[in-house]
Amino acid sequence: MSEKQARAVEIAVAYHRAWTTGNLDLAAKHLAEDVTCHAPSGTINGRGAVRAFMEPFAASLTNSKLLAVYGTDDEALLMYDTANLAVPSAPGAELYRIQNDEIAEINIIFDRLPFALARGDVVGV
Amino acid sequence: MSEKQARAVEIAVAYHRAWTTGNLDLAAKHLAEDVTCHAPSGTINGRGAVRAFMEPFAASLTNSKLLAVYGTDDEALLMYDTANLAVPSAPGAELYRIQNDEIAEINIIFDRLPFALARGDVVGV
Repeated sequence: MSEKQARAVEIAVAYHRAWTTGNLDLAAKHLAEDVTCHAPSGTINGRGAVRAFMEPFAASLTNSKLLAVYGTDDEALLMYDTANLAVPSAPGAELYRIQNDEIAEINIIFDRLPFALARGDVVGV
Repeated sequence: MSEKQARAVEIAVAYHRAWTTGNLDLAAKHLAEDVTCHAPSGTINGRGAVRAFMEPFAASLTNSKLLAVYGTDDEALLMYDTANLAVPSAPGAELYRIQNDEIAEINIIFDRLPFALARGDVVGV
């Protein structure tokens, strides 16, 4: 693994560790100012908006575990599990594109259904 | 990348290509008979059950695109997007653990909410 490969993974893991431990100030420092985040609910643009999107979920976590992380020279791919009071297992996967040592683009995948049910946004029929 | 690393990724990509092109016979050959699949809806055990889980979704696809794939000696991690008539963008991520050149364990993450809404299993409130 080259230094550059190690750096992309290092940034992704540092960001992941920061937000999963509730340190959103540190997490936000890894985001480019014009970061684009493709989430299940739609696309979120800009560091402040992505932080605002992650913060309530980060604050709700009771546990998290990194399941796998890989990367090349300019991207990293993570899979993790999280737990909170509403959803005891909420795994996620994130693909990060790194530019100038910052996260320029994120693709987040997670299952919104248990959160929507827990919040009462949807009901089973 | 070692031969062994390349092999784990090769198996994962071959499985992914098979099911996303509707070739479930070929896809199933890459699954261990006692494969365990952790999906959003719960854990599915055995080659036949995992095939039965994947087949309706595979049959519904109108498009799919591999976004990223990585692996080590015994696991591979993929992120992809899919399209079907009900859900125009349904990205997924899968972590495969490979044993004896077969897929022994799968962790699948995708957003069930748009599928549940499209099927009428849940409604917004």
